[in-house]
Amino acid sequence: MEYRKIKDDDDEVQEDNDVASDLESLKGKSHTVASSNIALATLGGGGGSTERINWKRKGVVTCALTILTSSQAILIVWSKRAGKYEYSVTTANFLVETLKCALSLLALTRIWKNDGVTDDNRLSTTYDEVKVFPIPAALYLFKNLLQYYIFAYVDAPGYQILKNLNIISTGVLYRIILKKKLSEIQWAGFILLCCGCTTAQLNSNSDRVLQTSLPGWIMAIIMALLSGFAGVYTEAIIKKRPSRNINVQNFWLYVFGMAFNAVAIVIQDFDAVANKGFFHGYSFITVLMILNHALSGIAVSMVMKYADNIVKVYSTSVAMLLTAVVSVFLFNFHLSLAFFLGSTVVSVSVYLHSAGKLR
Amino acid sequence: MEYRKIKDDDDEVQEDNDVASDLESLKGKSHTVASSNIALATLGGGGGSTERINWKRKGVVTCALTILTSSQAILIVWSKRAGKYEYSVTTANFLVETLKCALSLLALTRIWKNDGVTDDNRLSTTYDEVKVFPIPAALYLFKNLLQYYIFAYVDAPGYQILKNLNIISTGVLYRIILKKKLSEIQWAGFILLCCGCTTAQLNSNSDRVLQTSLPGWIMAIIMALLSGFAGVYTEAIIKKRPSRNINVQNFWLYVFGMAFNAVAIVIQDFDAVANKGFFHGYSFITVLMILNHALSGIAVSMVMKYADNIVKVYSTSVAMLLTAVVSVFLFNFHLSLAFFLGSTVVSVSVYLHSAGKLR
Repeated sequence: MEYRKIKDDDDEVQEDNDVASDLESLKGKSHTVASSNIALATLGGGGGSTERINWKRKGVVTCALTILTSSQAILIVWSKRAGKYEYSVTTANFLVETLKCALSLLALTRIWKNDGVTDDNRLSTTYDEVKVFPIPAALYLFKNLLQYYIFAYVDAPGYQILKNLNIISTGVLYRIILKKKLSEIQWAGFILLCCGCTTAQLNSNSDRVLQTSLPGWIMAIIMALLSGFAGVYTEAIIKKRPSRNINVQNFWLYVFGMAFNAVAIVIQDFDAVANKGFFHGYSFITVLMILNHALSGIAVSMVMKYADNIVKVYSTSVAMLLTAVVSVFLFNFHLSLAFFLGSTVVSVSVYLHSAGKLR
Repeated sequence: MEYRKIKDDDDEVQEDNDVASDLESLKGKSHTVASSNIALATLGGGGGSTERINWKRKGVVTCALTILTSSQAILIVWSKRAGKYEYSVTTANFLVETLKCALSLLALTRIWKNDGVTDDNRLSTTYDEVKVFPIPAALYLFKNLLQYYIFAYVDAPGYQILKNLNIISTGVLYRIILKKKLSEIQWAGFILLCCGCTTAQLNSNSDRVLQTSLPGWIMAIIMALLSGFAGVYTEAIIKKRPSRNINVQNFWLYVFGMAFNAVAIVIQDFDAVANKGFFHGYSFITVLMILNHALSGIAVSMVMKYADNIVKVYSTSVAMLLTAVVSVFLFNFHLSLAFFLGSTVVSVSVYLHSAGKLR
């Protein structure tokens, strides 16, 4: 039960892998925006206006991700309360990928109808474009398999604490792989984000994590690197061809997501699926969670396209804190002093990220 | 026992009130430095060099304060371990003031012998100069009396947590009373310093402090304001006449410190002193603690003269963390995850304070 719980919590990370198509209204908007950007650029004026539009788009996708991630965590708490955790997580993940794939196609058919098929929005691809697309999905599969073994070294709450290493690994890999610079103040903010999130999660048993043995630490660091690498690599793939329609990029990412999740079903849940059926244990809340994960995945993909991994990490971290606050009202949660301190540190960190922008 | 412990811990704050004279070597140094500064200034050159010397002096007094505060806390732990807490804290405070007064005079006699008596180093004063000197001592007396009542509303560990409000009150009053500006980044650092110190002190009972009733919070805030106001006011007094010798300023501050501590003995410990004698319960460690408090007081005073209250707060906060690390080796203390997180936040805060300097 404890283990299943963690596995599901980790779906929050799994969504890094997600790419998307739906949010048709948002998509429509950003598409119009893109056209008007081009129009403005052709007119040779309005650089400031383009920047404002980019900012607006970045803001919209970031807010969408924050809200979806919060509601996702709340659904997890709700489903824990309801005690419904008997479905196979791998089948749910597979359905999430399938749903996003379908939504990508739906969005594309609308675009084709309005704009016609162009080089940027056609579905057919080249080996050169598609060869990198399986990599993030493969990294996630590997990470999820490792997760089965780390519990020999850390308990479940300890693993939740160690997952905050993802923040640091994402920052470091973002710097190394995407070669984008953060200012010193922004790095300070990033370290604080990691400390603040961890502080907010502290409870009376958290100190046990310090007793983690060396193999446990190594596995935790490898998992953080895999997760960070998958996120940063997805951004690299999506940004490599800026004019390529995001829905096409998402479609291909998700085709491989489906494939690798099918492998995960076979490795991890073959017996359960064979004996009890693919949909055993599904409930209304499971369906809601799958829907939410799909939409979150779309939001992550949009953030990767129009913002970056750093914004994604901030957005999901703030979502974690929002969830706790909302849970106070929904589930009568008690907020600890550590939570208040951690939240304050995270808030200052968000401020530093914006105040420390390289000029 | 618990209460006495707190009372003694609080002497760390009491030293804000301290002003000084000894550290003859350090004093001699700063005196020489002062003369050479004047020489350089008269020669009309070496502005950069003066600045470097000022920085060096600021660095020396800050390090002295940090080391003395750390060793002070270690003495407190040591004395707790030894179970020696049977002396009257008010008599010890009185002796600390007396010792500092004596050391001020000692330093002054040396200065008079070397440089002769000048307007800046003569002991005699005017009503206009001396009238403000009792104020910090009076504020501390009032704060220490309040301390007797706050324990009706918070327990001892809760009070330790609430004392971190001093950091914020010092920053706010420093801004309002001394009208010195901190940059936004430095304010961010200051908020983090408060969060980091509190996080480092977290334990499984810390959440109880959130249940503090309104009168408890009001008292804690008043005490933080009194403590912050006393510190900031001392800086204002010392800096009002920059050319006035620090030992003369210290002497007068401490004369009033002695007087107000005599009042405290009468109010709080009259019976114990009358029945068991002034020095009842004194031990070797008590003497060491008095000596250490006197030297710390001198260092605080030097920091007020050559740096400011912000540097003082940073210095004593870092000292708190150093103490915990040293205690691991001396007393086999265990460091908690919260301590590591809090220390990291404090370290980032120190960096931000220096990186965020107003240009």
